Amino acid sequence: MKQEIPYKIYLEEKEMPRQWYNVRADMKKKPAPLLNPETQKPITLDELSGVFCRELARQELDDVTPYFDIPEEIRNFYKMYRPSPLVRAYCLEEKLGTPAHIYYKFEGNNTSGSHKLNSAIAQAFYAKKQGLKGVTTETGAGQWGKALSMACAYLDLDCQVYMVKCSYEQKPFRREVMRTYGAKVTPSPSMETEVGRRINAEFPGTSGSLGCAISEAVEAAVSQEGYRYVLGSVLAQVLLHQSVIGLETKAALDKYSVKADTIIGCAGGGSNLGGLISPFVGQMLRGEASYDIIAVEPASCPSLTRGVYAYDFCDTGKVCPLAKMYTLGSGFIPSASHAGGLRYHGMSSTVSELYDQGLLTARSVEQTEVFKAAQMFAKVEGILPAPESSHAIKVAIDEAMKCRETGEEKNIVFGLTGTGYFDMVAYQRFNDGEMQDYIPTDEELKKAVSQLPKVEG
Amino acid sequence: MKQEIPYKIYLEEKEMPRQWYNVRADMKKKPAPLLNPETQKPITLDELSGVFCRELARQELDDVTPYFDIPEEIRNFYKMYRPSPLVRAYCLEEKLGTPAHIYYKFEGNNTSGSHKLNSAIAQAFYAKKQGLKGVTTETGAGQWGKALSMACAYLDLDCQVYMVKCSYEQKPFRREVMRTYGAKVTPSPSMETEVGRRINAEFPGTSGSLGCAISEAVEAAVSQEGYRYVLGSVLAQVLLHQSVIGLETKAALDKYSVKADTIIGCAGGGSNLGGLISPFVGQMLRGEASYDIIAVEPASCPSLTRGVYAYDFCDTGKVCPLAKMYTLGSGFIPSASHAGGLRYHGMSSTVSELYDQGLLTARSVEQTEVFKAAQMFAKVEGILPAPESSHAIKVAIDEAMKCRETGEEKNIVFGLTGTGYFDMVAYQRFNDGEMQDYIPTDEELKKAVSQLPKVEG
Repeated sequence: MKQEIPYKIYLEEKEMPRQWYNVRADMKKKPAPLLNPETQKPITLDELSGVFCRELARQELDDVTPYFDIPEEIRNFYKMYRPSPLVRAYCLEEKLGTPAHIYYKFEGNNTSGSHKLNSAIAQAFYAKKQGLKGVTTETGAGQWGKALSMACAYLDLDCQVYMVKCSYEQKPFRREVMRTYGAKVTPSPSMETEVGRRINAEFPGTSGSLGCAISEAVEAAVSQEGYRYVLGSVLAQVLLHQSVIGLETKAALDKYSVKADTIIGCAGGGSNLGGLISPFVGQMLRGEASYDIIAVEPASCPSLTRGVYAYDFCDTGKVCPLAKMYTLGSGFIPSASHAGGLRYHGMSSTVSELYDQGLLTARSVEQTEVFKAAQMFAKVEGILPAPESSHAIKVAIDEAMKCRETGEEKNIVFGLTGTGYFDMVAYQRFNDGEMQDYIPTDEELKKAVSQLPKVEG
Repeated sequence: MKQEIPYKIYLEEKEMPRQWYNVRADMKKKPAPLLNPETQKPITLDELSGVFCRELARQELDDVTPYFDIPEEIRNFYKMYRPSPLVRAYCLEEKLGTPAHIYYKFEGNNTSGSHKLNSAIAQAFYAKKQGLKGVTTETGAGQWGKALSMACAYLDLDCQVYMVKCSYEQKPFRREVMRTYGAKVTPSPSMETEVGRRINAEFPGTSGSLGCAISEAVEAAVSQEGYRYVLGSVLAQVLLHQSVIGLETKAALDKYSVKADTIIGCAGGGSNLGGLISPFVGQMLRGEASYDIIAVEPASCPSLTRGVYAYDFCDTGKVCPLAKMYTLGSGFIPSASHAGGLRYHGMSSTVSELYDQGLLTARSVEQTEVFKAAQMFAKVEGILPAPESSHAIKVAIDEAMKCRETGEEKNIVFGLTGTGYFDMVAYQRFNDGEMQDYIPTDEELKKAVSQLPKVEG
């Protein structure tokens, strides 16, 4: 007899994953290696360890070990907000009149408001274990900065966040969350770093950019004794930590003998999508199962659907290693979409390679449609979603509506990465009917990719 | 063998309460009845049904039925965010170095951000069932308005919220949440009601008050066909719905054979405290157990610790029935404390009567101390708490520190009613060292209670 599926499937604490899963281990063709931008040779552990903690650099470069133990200290932190629920969207199904069964993995039930905390605590933990004093990072919209400041407060580690100046001024509440957790938040460009002073001198009154904030954070890390730089997305180590999302999702589905048909995630740098799909893609790579996996990106920043697959800089400041990825060019400036977390010019190398191998498809959607889906979801499922997450909601609804036409009882699973409580300016614009869509022209995209670095071979 | 207690005790969906508990049924001396302000006679069901839905009026007046079935529709809504976790605060215990075991019932994991949703859905449901078109209410800080707008959106019921004008302007994000859920939010005083026009004429440019917003909401309810007025605290019906908090708490503790010693809740109008303590007080009233119950109120609005026990108006507009309660006088204007939800001049009649009978004690705390406790809690337990809830945190920490001195392994349970994500202006003031305390003088209090209505007998 099939068990009745509850509204929220909670794993027990003891069922929480004890290991992260490294999907690269099951890939026959591996993601292309990170390159040292000067030598254009694969970057070495020693080179990488100057910027990142050694253990994180090791994880970054390891594409053969399938499982990494989650240290007990990290598991204990996870227990404060994990296992996160896999929710059966009964009310949404009813509203849509679809025969599909819709599930979402909800990562927003923590103060950082998103899945970012899963990797923040891991990165902070390894920094602490290495005996470091603190870490530096940049933040644009503020989600990652919030998560990192929480993790550092818990471990009593210094946390220095360079926050893009316009966000620092326009999003004071995200800044205050970080300050409440004891982080030092500096508007970027600042007068505290060489690169910041240079940019301030060159562009007086500039409101900053993510690229500049990254450069400041990296400079701050390498110029202070006992500090390293940390990053919230794109990197393979981040996808490794985020695999906890997919592992829990799979365990929860397995518990009720549910086989997912379609798996949907929003994709900016790829941290959530990569984490959610990892164990499912692993099955596909091992020939054990097949899934229809869909990455959803904003039409304003369509790296997978309209980018090129090439080596590029991860940051606009060009201080980080070169990564092969689907990219719009590191000089591409996305329009001011409200899904700040998806405004990234490139895509994680791992997700890019999986996409290139045809293991997932991609779709781009416009933000007014996304906010319509978000509002409908909020009304029937109760949760006010983050704009980023709402990209996945939009496509999940589209897929469920297709099932209504075909009568298929598909199991649709999507990642609800976070809540929109700090995004009310965007909702206000939507409520006032003032939200606009923006799709870059072919010419704009062509111009941006013409600036890609030349890489041999 | 004693089971190991997880970080979060989640009841299963099927263990969720099927009935609310009405603590008045077990009270030998009942709370004094509501009085019709004109006749000074106990208000009748018919009188009350003109303002409230009939079923809610019935619940309000029933002080003998111990249990009310929770309708299945409400239970289904509850399932979207309940059962809420009872969290064992392992990290806080370790930080404090206390032998005490600390538990908190966390009601903030929903988009309304607080326990208010438990009663909002119940009140909206009965309005819908009665065939009404909509409901009206007032909101000060906006917590209740958010919860009600979510419940109404779910049931497709019109929701009209009169929001104190200064909050409407200064807290635009709470307003936008309500608007996203489809509520009509009107700054009060407005030009849409007679009382609003009168006040605007009399005090041009006024930024409004809760009393005025209540008056507008009541007028809007009685002057529109198919509308009733709803209220988020103080009333016995609200405590009834909120008993779900205490019932779940007790069930979770029982599951692990934990006997609470001390139970702590913040107290504004009494909705959370009353709900949390109801089943425990029920045991005390039946002579089955004893607990040390502590109500925590702000020193700036100390109705239990410094008020008088007398009949008073529930609202400053004096349109609602008279209730006997611990009160500072309906004309008392609390200073601009950041815990907006605790800035109420009176206290629920039920909580007041229990207090008068000695079943609970009360303590008042100053807000800078409260925010210090909130920040410490956020750092070790991960959750950024609402200022209101942080009053309970403060006293829980005080009690745990006493245990450190005495060596007692007490079980301390407190209600964490909500999150502070929409209270970052208050946190900012705290972070900047600009928060101030305010304690009313004896003279101020004396003056306010001198205005109490004269009630015979």
